[in-house]
Amino acid sequence: MNDLKFIEPVKDRLQLVEERLHAQAKGYHPAMEAALEHLLSSGGKRIRPVLTLLAGGMLKTDPQRLVAMAAAVEMLHTATLVHDDLIDGSLVRRGIPTLNTQWSSAATVLTGDFLFARAAKLAAETESVTALHLFSQTLATIVDGEITQLFGGRGRASRADYNRRIYAKTASLFETSTSATAIIANSDEETKQKIRLYGYEIGMAFQIVDDILDFTSQTEKLGKPVASDLRQGLITLPSLYYIESYPDDQDMANVIEHDPCDEGCLDRLLASIRDSGSIEKAQNEAEQHVARAIEALTNLPDCIERTSLIELARYIVRRNV
Amino acid sequence: MNDLKFIEPVKDRLQLVEERLHAQAKGYHPAMEAALEHLLSSGGKRIRPVLTLLAGGMLKTDPQRLVAMAAAVEMLHTATLVHDDLIDGSLVRRGIPTLNTQWSSAATVLTGDFLFARAAKLAAETESVTALHLFSQTLATIVDGEITQLFGGRGRASRADYNRRIYAKTASLFETSTSATAIIANSDEETKQKIRLYGYEIGMAFQIVDDILDFTSQTEKLGKPVASDLRQGLITLPSLYYIESYPDDQDMANVIEHDPCDEGCLDRLLASIRDSGSIEKAQNEAEQHVARAIEALTNLPDCIERTSLIELARYIVRRNV
Repeated sequence: MNDLKFIEPVKDRLQLVEERLHAQAKGYHPAMEAALEHLLSSGGKRIRPVLTLLAGGMLKTDPQRLVAMAAAVEMLHTATLVHDDLIDGSLVRRGIPTLNTQWSSAATVLTGDFLFARAAKLAAETESVTALHLFSQTLATIVDGEITQLFGGRGRASRADYNRRIYAKTASLFETSTSATAIIANSDEETKQKIRLYGYEIGMAFQIVDDILDFTSQTEKLGKPVASDLRQGLITLPSLYYIESYPDDQDMANVIEHDPCDEGCLDRLLASIRDSGSIEKAQNEAEQHVARAIEALTNLPDCIERTSLIELARYIVRRNV
Repeated sequence: MNDLKFIEPVKDRLQLVEERLHAQAKGYHPAMEAALEHLLSSGGKRIRPVLTLLAGGMLKTDPQRLVAMAAAVEMLHTATLVHDDLIDGSLVRRGIPTLNTQWSSAATVLTGDFLFARAAKLAAETESVTALHLFSQTLATIVDGEITQLFGGRGRASRADYNRRIYAKTASLFETSTSATAIIANSDEETKQKIRLYGYEIGMAFQIVDDILDFTSQTEKLGKPVASDLRQGLITLPSLYYIESYPDDQDMANVIEHDPCDEGCLDRLLASIRDSGSIEKAQNEAEQHVARAIEALTNLPDCIERTSLIELARYIVRRNV
C-alpha cells in the first residue's frame, strides 16, 4: 500500500509512527524486542495509522499527539492479531509465519498482553483522557465481538448479527482511528461526528470487502477460493444475500451444519453463490458505505489530506488484497 | 481480610469498588458477565484497592476518581491472574476453580483481554493522564517480568534477578496502587515520593512473605509444604539465603536441575532449608521492608487512614495466608 498516492501527504509522519512502534520493546526482555520486530517486519497495510494521520492532518491536530495516537491504533490492532492467530491456530499472517507457530502459547499470550500495555501507553501519550476512554472502549468492543463469535457457533445468519460483528471486528477501530484526531484537536461537535462517521463507514466497507475477497481470491496452492469463512460456518454478506434469495438451499444448510463440511458440497455452493449475483450485491453495499463516508467529508477543510481520504475510501472497495 | 480492623475507614468505599467491578461486563456478552462474576465471587483479599482507598483517603483524593482507580488496580490484577493461571495450567485460585479449568484456552485468553480493556477504562475514569501513564507502564512491567521468568529457565539465582522479579510481579502494582492517589490528588513531589515508597516497600514485603509461605504452609492433602516454587526450579529468598550459606549443596543442585525433581531430594532439601535459619532471614528482610514503609509515612497527614496503613503494613508480615 505504501506506493499508493493517497499516502503522500503523511509519508514523513508515517515514518515517525513506524519508528515509534519499533521503539516500544526497548529496555524490555530481548524476546519481546524480537517478537515486536517480527510482527512489524511483515509490513502490513498500516491503514489505521494512515487514516489517523490524514484525518489529523486535515483537522490540524497537534503532530506529536497525532503520531502517538497513530502508533497506538496500529499497536492495538497488532496485539489483537497476536491473540486472534493463537486462538484460531493461524499459521501465516501478512505473508510471514505467525508468532504462535514459533513460540509456545504462553509466550504468545504474554506478547499480546505486552503489546496491549504498549498500545495503552501510546494512547496515554496523546494526553487526552477522552481519547483514552474511546481507546479502552474500542478494545472492549473488539474483544466482546470475538467472544460473541466464539460462543456463537456455526451458521448464525442475521443481518443484525453480521453488522454487529463487522463493527466490532473492524469498523470500531477505524472509527476510533479517525474520531480520536478530532477529540485530541478539540474540534467542534459537528466535525467530530463527521470524521467519526467517515471512519465508521469505511471500516464497514473494509470488512465487507475482506469478506468478499474470501470468496473471490484464489489460494496460491489450490487455485480455488479460500472460503475460509464458510468452512468455519461463518455467514458473511455474500452468503447472507444468497440465503435471502435461496432460503431453502440444501448445500448451504449442509455446509453450515457440518464441521468439517463436505468439500463437494462446498464447491457446488461456492459456484452457486458466484452465479447468484450475491457477491455483486455485497460489493454494491460496500460502495454505498464508501459513498456515505465521502459524503461525510463534505464541508470539512478542503485540503490535500481530505483529497487523500476520498481516494483512500475509493481504494478500499477497489483493492484485491 | 474483610474482618481486619484497618479496613474500617474505607469499608463503605470498598463496597463501591466492589459494585463498580461487578458492573464492568454489563451490556457485553453473557459469558463475560458470568466469567466476571465467577472471578469476583472468590473474594480475594482486595489488598490493592484497600491500599488505594487508604492512601487516597489520607491525601484527600477526590472520592469518585479514587474509587475508579481502586477498581482499576483490582481489575488489572484479576486480568493478569486469568492469563497467569492459563499459562501455568493452575486448577484452583483463591479456593475456587480457575477459568481455564472450565473454559477453552480461547475463551480464557479473550476474557483476560476483556478485563484488561475494562481496567484501562476504569483507569481512564480517574481523568488523570499521568495516572494512566503509570498504569500502562505497570502492565508492561508485570508482563515483562512474566516473560523474563518464562524464558529464564530453572534455577537462576541472583539477588538482583530475584528483586527485579518480585518488583515486576507484585511491588510494581502495589506502588501504582498508592502513588496514583497522590498523582490524582495533585500532591506535592515529596508526598508523591513517600506514598510511592510506602507502596513499593510493602509490595516487596508482600511477595517475600508469599514466597516464605510456599515453604511453611502445609497443603491440606499432603500435610507437607507446597514448595511449588522449588519444584518449578524457582529460586526465592529463603533458597537464596540457603545457597549463600551452602553454595555447594548437592540436593539444591539436583532439585534445580531436574524437572520433575526427585521427591526424596526435595524433602531433604526442605528440611535443610528450614533448619538453616534461611526462612527467618527472609522474614527479617520482609520486616525491614515494612519498617521502611512505615518510616515513609512519617510526616504524612496524621489521620485514621495513616494508622490503618501502618497496621496494614504490619499485617503483611504477620499473615499466614
